[in-house]
Amino acid sequence: MGNTALLEKDFHNLLKEQNAYREAIMLTVWDMRTKIPKKGVEQRSWVVGFLSEKLHQLETSERMKHFIDMLKDSVDDEVMKKTVEECEETYERNRKIPAEEYKEYVMLQSKSESIWQEAREKADFSLFQPYLEDLVEYNKKFANYWGYDENIYDALLHEYEPGVTTKMLDKVFPELRNSLTTLVEKINQSKTKPDPAILSGHFPKKNQEAFSVEILKRMGYDFASGRLDETIHPFAIGINMNDVRVTTRYDEEDFRMAVFGTIHEGGHALYEQNISQKLRSTPLATGTSMGIHESQSLFWENFIGRNKSFWESHYDLFKSYAPNHFGHVSLDNFYQAVNEVKASFIRIEADELTYPLHIMVRYELEKALINGDIHVSDLPHLWNEKMVDYLGIEPPSDREGVLQDIHWAGGDFGYFPSYALGYMYAAQFQHTMENELNLNECIATGNFDQIRQWLTANIHQYGKMKKPLEIIKDVTNEQLNPDYLVSYLSKKYTDIYNL
Amino acid sequence: MGNTALLEKDFHNLLKEQNAYREAIMLTVWDMRTKIPKKGVEQRSWVVGFLSEKLHQLETSERMKHFIDMLKDSVDDEVMKKTVEECEETYERNRKIPAEEYKEYVMLQSKSESIWQEAREKADFSLFQPYLEDLVEYNKKFANYWGYDENIYDALLHEYEPGVTTKMLDKVFPELRNSLTTLVEKINQSKTKPDPAILSGHFPKKNQEAFSVEILKRMGYDFASGRLDETIHPFAIGINMNDVRVTTRYDEEDFRMAVFGTIHEGGHALYEQNISQKLRSTPLATGTSMGIHESQSLFWENFIGRNKSFWESHYDLFKSYAPNHFGHVSLDNFYQAVNEVKASFIRIEADELTYPLHIMVRYELEKALINGDIHVSDLPHLWNEKMVDYLGIEPPSDREGVLQDIHWAGGDFGYFPSYALGYMYAAQFQHTMENELNLNECIATGNFDQIRQWLTANIHQYGKMKKPLEIIKDVTNEQLNPDYLVSYLSKKYTDIYNL
Repeated sequence: MGNTALLEKDFHNLLKEQNAYREAIMLTVWDMRTKIPKKGVEQRSWVVGFLSEKLHQLETSERMKHFIDMLKDSVDDEVMKKTVEECEETYERNRKIPAEEYKEYVMLQSKSESIWQEAREKADFSLFQPYLEDLVEYNKKFANYWGYDENIYDALLHEYEPGVTTKMLDKVFPELRNSLTTLVEKINQSKTKPDPAILSGHFPKKNQEAFSVEILKRMGYDFASGRLDETIHPFAIGINMNDVRVTTRYDEEDFRMAVFGTIHEGGHALYEQNISQKLRSTPLATGTSMGIHESQSLFWENFIGRNKSFWESHYDLFKSYAPNHFGHVSLDNFYQAVNEVKASFIRIEADELTYPLHIMVRYELEKALINGDIHVSDLPHLWNEKMVDYLGIEPPSDREGVLQDIHWAGGDFGYFPSYALGYMYAAQFQHTMENELNLNECIATGNFDQIRQWLTANIHQYGKMKKPLEIIKDVTNEQLNPDYLVSYLSKKYTDIYNL
Repeated sequence: MGNTALLEKDFHNLLKEQNAYREAIMLTVWDMRTKIPKKGVEQRSWVVGFLSEKLHQLETSERMKHFIDMLKDSVDDEVMKKTVEECEETYERNRKIPAEEYKEYVMLQSKSESIWQEAREKADFSLFQPYLEDLVEYNKKFANYWGYDENIYDALLHEYEPGVTTKMLDKVFPELRNSLTTLVEKINQSKTKPDPAILSGHFPKKNQEAFSVEILKRMGYDFASGRLDETIHPFAIGINMNDVRVTTRYDEEDFRMAVFGTIHEGGHALYEQNISQKLRSTPLATGTSMGIHESQSLFWENFIGRNKSFWESHYDLFKSYAPNHFGHVSLDNFYQAVNEVKASFIRIEADELTYPLHIMVRYELEKALINGDIHVSDLPHLWNEKMVDYLGIEPPSDREGVLQDIHWAGGDFGYFPSYALGYMYAAQFQHTMENELNLNECIATGNFDQIRQWLTANIHQYGKMKKPLEIIKDVTNEQLNPDYLVSYLSKKYTDIYNL
């Protein structure tokens, strides 16, 4: 072996070590959210912390720095090149934060999450406020360590959606917001009212689970490389490339939770299951960003799962799992009911049309916080104001308002935009896909293989080989463009509500 | 803090790191045996290997050596003292094996296990023979590195049952073997024949699971610190002190697998759940030996679960989970049927009377192998001979003979005696317990709390604070003594078979 070959081999060993820690962490996280007995949690939390520290040490080690320096300009192989770049980015980003501050921050995160839980239960923002103030200060400090060109908030956005800037968001988000609020107003004035009462009934967990498994299989989710479990807050997780698990939640009084939740998480899982094996044991073997990930889950959940053609082909199947229901409910009425638009306080319970408005509230507030334009103490008040402005409803307490999401309690600022970005990406992908294959016929005939293969060929396989905006450009031949989402929603809801 | 206090604190940090690796390994092992999707296994095996190597590195590190040297003679606290001793023993034992040889051995183990699987499937010992020869050679070499007083096999026994010697086994095992073969002969001549056909039927998995949960609860197994899952080869596992999981197997055509299997694993789990919290984050917080562990599982499985009084108090409960069965089966007939004695080829399917004879076959052969008295190539032939001698049956192929157990394929020589030792220990414990509490009444009334509390007070709480023979002596005021097991089995089967 030549010198470079030897070096690459050693570098690969380091990557494999990192992956081993990552895999152990992921498995532990999955277990803690699905299986762990109550009393085991405390000690296990410590273990996750320990393993994360070990991973962090490797990512920022002198050994890593050595490989980066030696390989950066000498490797030819494309995968190796991107791998070194990815490692360098992680190295630089983490090294910029003084070890002591990082440690304090990790402890603050953990403490804040438990205080936030208490505050939410008691609907008492004042308990959480001092912790949130500290979290904001740390994030501002980190953003300055990391650096940015125009807006301090960009430095945080970068963590979740590299390449996307505040400037870009401030161009597309208001357009999206205005279009949606106008649409919501029209819907509110419409005389057509879907009747969600026809969806009510008792749906045994067992049947919901069997239907969930069936749908996942039809989507092309590989159960030999994954499994489905029950949890409280559904998620999908890649433990290794061939072990990508889905979780869902069964509400026996409302099937929508499990059906649309499973399809959503299934969309995330398909992404992770179909990354090219060429990226194995590199840090590139995962979804490229939060936004692109969300584009996959939302594509399946909304553009397929809430599509009329989907229910044309799957209503009978669904009814076979709910044998005592829907006998007299027409497909049209069913379809309209599962697409009812109704302003709600809680983001994760929102319909697909008002959902982005929830994101706007959060984006505008966190951007202002990080820029020092507002204070943490202003949040409850401003939150409620924006809810009234965009959705026309005011949360009865902070539990249904500013305290509902865990993100800020975990120090995750810059994350929320990914949800709306992902939604816009999904609409752009859908538009392109429609030009390349008969999407509606695929959905109407349940031929999901073609759809999944398209997604794999255009998105999944690349993992982190391409940055999010590179994927958008390569696939759609356009920049980020909110028009497709607006047009999709306008068309769909004009039809449903006879606007 | 004084110097010693500081040192102890640093030492504790090292122990916590070791525990973190151990916990991650245990969780991974549990997952691999219960939940993992097929294609995820290959990569996960590598992760377990990696984490095990990390743990091994800490156990044999200079840092560990430093703490041992500094603390060995200076600590007063009993737990700390035993902890240092335990660490020293692990350190010395592992350091005696050259790193290169250990690495080769680990690879050989892993390779051998997969070859063994193939050999077993094909019933072809010749495939496995060269690997087994290597494994024997490595074990002899390691035994010489570790050292021994009288018999090279002692050095291997020490790993599983410290303090127990070949000499001790050669005193008690033949006595046990002769008593049991005599008993089996009498039973074979008896005209009384339990009728296992009355046990047949279809038992839905769901009902078996519900009964298993109910029995575990009655035993005092804490579900807030554990859970029950399905697997192929049942086991119990302590992931951390407050997360001790049980697994079982459901055969819908034979309820005995799950009922007695769950009680057995529940016995293991109670041991791990009831270790004193004082031992937390030390390597003492686990069962002290394979034999003592097996004494707990066998005590619950046989001395309680297969006891007549148990079925007097639980037959109605059991029938409520098998509503279409046993309507006309008397308690006596049921009790006799679940205690049928019948020579079988497979150890893990053996009844409680012939079970120790399976162990004798293995003990005698592995002792002779390690002592160089026989060759690996002699094994199939000698195995079958001994089966005829002790059990009166000859395996139709090596699949049902010498190839049935995984132990030797994993390099575990010296492990098998623990099963028979544990059985003898259990009988000794039972005898003592009968003197101290009304055991039969406890069983007959389902008052398991008293039994569990006795076991915790005398055995569980100590974890590794006491060596196995120390526990036997402290609890029973005797040395290892096979008479109690022989007397228990004689009495029970004389009654069942009208001998």
